[in-house]
Amino acid sequence: MSSYYSSWEPEAPTVKTEIPGPKSKAAIAELDKVFDTRSLNMLTDYHNSKGNYIADPDGNVLLDVYAQIASIPVGYNNPALLKAAQGEEMINGLINRPALGNFPPQDWANVLKTGILKVAPKGLDQVFTAMAGSDANETAYKAAFMYRRQQERGGAHVEFTEEEMESAMNNQSPGASQLSIMSFKTAFHGRLFGSLSTTRSKPIHKLDIPAFDWPQATFPQLKYPLEDHVEENRKAEQEALAEVEHLILNYHVPPCAVIVEPIQSEGGDNHASADFFKGLRALTKKHNVLMIVDEVQTGVGATGKFWAHEHWNLPEPPDMVTFSKKAQTAGYYFGNPELRPNKPYRQFNTWMGDPARALLFRAIIEEIEKNDLVTKTAKVGDYLFGKLEALAKKYPGQFDNLRGKGMGTFIAFDNPRRDEFLKKAKSFGINIGGSGASAVRLRPMLIFEEKHADILLEALEKIVTSW
Amino acid sequence: MSSYYSSWEPEAPTVKTEIPGPKSKAAIAELDKVFDTRSLNMLTDYHNSKGNYIADPDGNVLLDVYAQIASIPVGYNNPALLKAAQGEEMINGLINRPALGNFPPQDWANVLKTGILKVAPKGLDQVFTAMAGSDANETAYKAAFMYRRQQERGGAHVEFTEEEMESAMNNQSPGASQLSIMSFKTAFHGRLFGSLSTTRSKPIHKLDIPAFDWPQATFPQLKYPLEDHVEENRKAEQEALAEVEHLILNYHVPPCAVIVEPIQSEGGDNHASADFFKGLRALTKKHNVLMIVDEVQTGVGATGKFWAHEHWNLPEPPDMVTFSKKAQTAGYYFGNPELRPNKPYRQFNTWMGDPARALLFRAIIEEIEKNDLVTKTAKVGDYLFGKLEALAKKYPGQFDNLRGKGMGTFIAFDNPRRDEFLKKAKSFGINIGGSGASAVRLRPMLIFEEKHADILLEALEKIVTSW
Repeated sequence: MSSYYSSWEPEAPTVKTEIPGPKSKAAIAELDKVFDTRSLNMLTDYHNSKGNYIADPDGNVLLDVYAQIASIPVGYNNPALLKAAQGEEMINGLINRPALGNFPPQDWANVLKTGILKVAPKGLDQVFTAMAGSDANETAYKAAFMYRRQQERGGAHVEFTEEEMESAMNNQSPGASQLSIMSFKTAFHGRLFGSLSTTRSKPIHKLDIPAFDWPQATFPQLKYPLEDHVEENRKAEQEALAEVEHLILNYHVPPCAVIVEPIQSEGGDNHASADFFKGLRALTKKHNVLMIVDEVQTGVGATGKFWAHEHWNLPEPPDMVTFSKKAQTAGYYFGNPELRPNKPYRQFNTWMGDPARALLFRAIIEEIEKNDLVTKTAKVGDYLFGKLEALAKKYPGQFDNLRGKGMGTFIAFDNPRRDEFLKKAKSFGINIGGSGASAVRLRPMLIFEEKHADILLEALEKIVTSW
Repeated sequence: MSSYYSSWEPEAPTVKTEIPGPKSKAAIAELDKVFDTRSLNMLTDYHNSKGNYIADPDGNVLLDVYAQIASIPVGYNNPALLKAAQGEEMINGLINRPALGNFPPQDWANVLKTGILKVAPKGLDQVFTAMAGSDANETAYKAAFMYRRQQERGGAHVEFTEEEMESAMNNQSPGASQLSIMSFKTAFHGRLFGSLSTTRSKPIHKLDIPAFDWPQATFPQLKYPLEDHVEENRKAEQEALAEVEHLILNYHVPPCAVIVEPIQSEGGDNHASADFFKGLRALTKKHNVLMIVDEVQTGVGATGKFWAHEHWNLPEPPDMVTFSKKAQTAGYYFGNPELRPNKPYRQFNTWMGDPARALLFRAIIEEIEKNDLVTKTAKVGDYLFGKLEALAKKYPGQFDNLRGKGMGTFIAFDNPRRDEFLKKAKSFGINIGGSGASAVRLRPMLIFEEKHADILLEALEKIVTSW
């Protein structure tokens, strides 16, 4: 079987210089004069980045299992995306950017149906489009607040009172609702003011920024491997659910929605079982709290299902599912028509997304389907996980808490010298990212195959035997 | 002199059917199944929209002085943008979307310097890039909060305390600061949670959404024509400034920044004088409050200057200027290096904008400069304003409070039957938008010429003589 990517990517990494090398260093110094470069990981040559490989100006070419913070779906300079980008439709979307709510393109329904909505999670047949993960989540929150207040008012037909309208203009209740969005400890849902109030990853993300007094529940802290800690983990999940219910019933700013990641990604790749999420769905249904699943990082195939929450087999779908990153566009899916606000212009902004990016997602979906990349990712994930288990056994303490079994390539482990680990990885030809306090997270693209897994595994072994 | 646009746009509007016509109606019904169409103004055929003219599926072609809510800069299907969109650089930016903070493209400094930063307001030589107006403003707010807290702590070198880090994770002070952003009544700064807390346009924008307890000052309510109400208006502006100072000194959640639009756009095209803004700059300097100028709608040429705040001749620049819409990309400019947070990852997100859109802005800037479109807009604005003054005199009560003299084509007036006015305009071949309670706002593109002004004026006269 010839490889899907082989026509356009190199065969192996090439490391020519330290990273950053001399050319990169000079360019970074220049860039820093106008753009903050302190979070810069690697200056990138995107013209020479191909498939699974990322290039830099010094001629270094690394196997990229970080993929722009998990946001490159089908490889750099993918020929199918190149073709889509050259198409008349894309160019039109790019140069004639519409205010989608007011002046949608005549083929917008078709673009949605053959793209974003073609992969809509089961039970969710509508979408509100956005720009990135933060505003996808925040517009979902807005929908949740409007929905709950509408119920409290007695339905869509009930008009706002004078008092509500006046107090809303003053940012005061009852017009500005005194409701909350519940999230979980170590969650990450974005960095704007509403989303940041639900983000609980690290102080550096939150310090100095005003926040809403919203509740957080403990995310179950599971022990790995999961199969060796079944009882303990079940107990941790039951306690977490009990806390969720307690907060729903007692928090002084009542939650109208709970937002949860299928796998807490930025927070360190923290997993929970399908039973936990089923329990959360049951609890939220019981107490009329909406369940928002944040699939910004987990969505679009990397877990071996198109949406990670498909792993749970929920009896009823989540109320909303948000997406971004590998979709290259963003928004939230929903099914219940009542989640459309009762009047126009309540959920609205000038652009409401970007048709050029929506068209790119359509091309990505076509590429995924044509090449069966989700199934392949599930398989290569199993292969990779098995090999990592062997490495973990061979090098105790170096691949701690290996997690992500059966979750495609969405795999992570802890290493006590994590930051050094990531730096060394570059010298062995691999670009990897970290998350949480000590996690090394693997976020390969959907075109990652056994061949790449072998290159990665060899490098990982070199890293841990080099110190 | 041959017209700039003449090669690619029609000579006049064509109205073939009611709007929406039969084809549009059918397509809208189809779209509504998956996408909320209650705010739909006109289903658009972007392939047949050219220059100043917007087309629909029924073959109607209207002179467009709304321009996607003031966000089309140089015309539909502009040949120069078409060329840029077909270029290798753009395609690369589109299909290899970087996480700009971690993996910037090697030529990112150059893209910024020849694009976004080439038109940076005087005194502001740095930029943080964003996606749209709301997050441009919100990231500017975040910078303001971090800056003020850093001052309070005693400088960039002072470390966060344990108490700050712990309380930040719980959304409580001192880690989550108890500071505010002041805005003005009838202002519009966006619709996400932080920006919406500063937006004071209409209840429908704010109802049910939790908001921060932040202060609002009265925006001076000027009488028009300005030259006939000099003393009254000066008094209104002095009172507004006194209120600003009072709130800075006394509001129970102290403001660390004031955000202001050069012309309140969504709120109804409310103007204030250069003296008012100079006074605001002086007050904010005096009290160590940052001044953020929101140029999302006013920026990029329509007022006859590239940035509307150039009209004020401030002795010192604003601290931050935000942009979006006609820039087709977004962000905030700043000059003071202390506005870079003291540590990396404090101001950060996955994409931090979109290089494809940044490249489009560069092409827009080239097109504006090459054709001297800002100067031309100033001139055609004067022409249009003069003719509108004559219409206002001829039809008393129909073009009330005509405003925007000397402000390019950024012109508005009130009409007592505004909604009907806008609807009728379509039947006479013109697409116009409204704002505030009764304003008709003209937001032509920068390629709007006397010829288009004449077509517009003729239609406006037809509207007011038709009832």
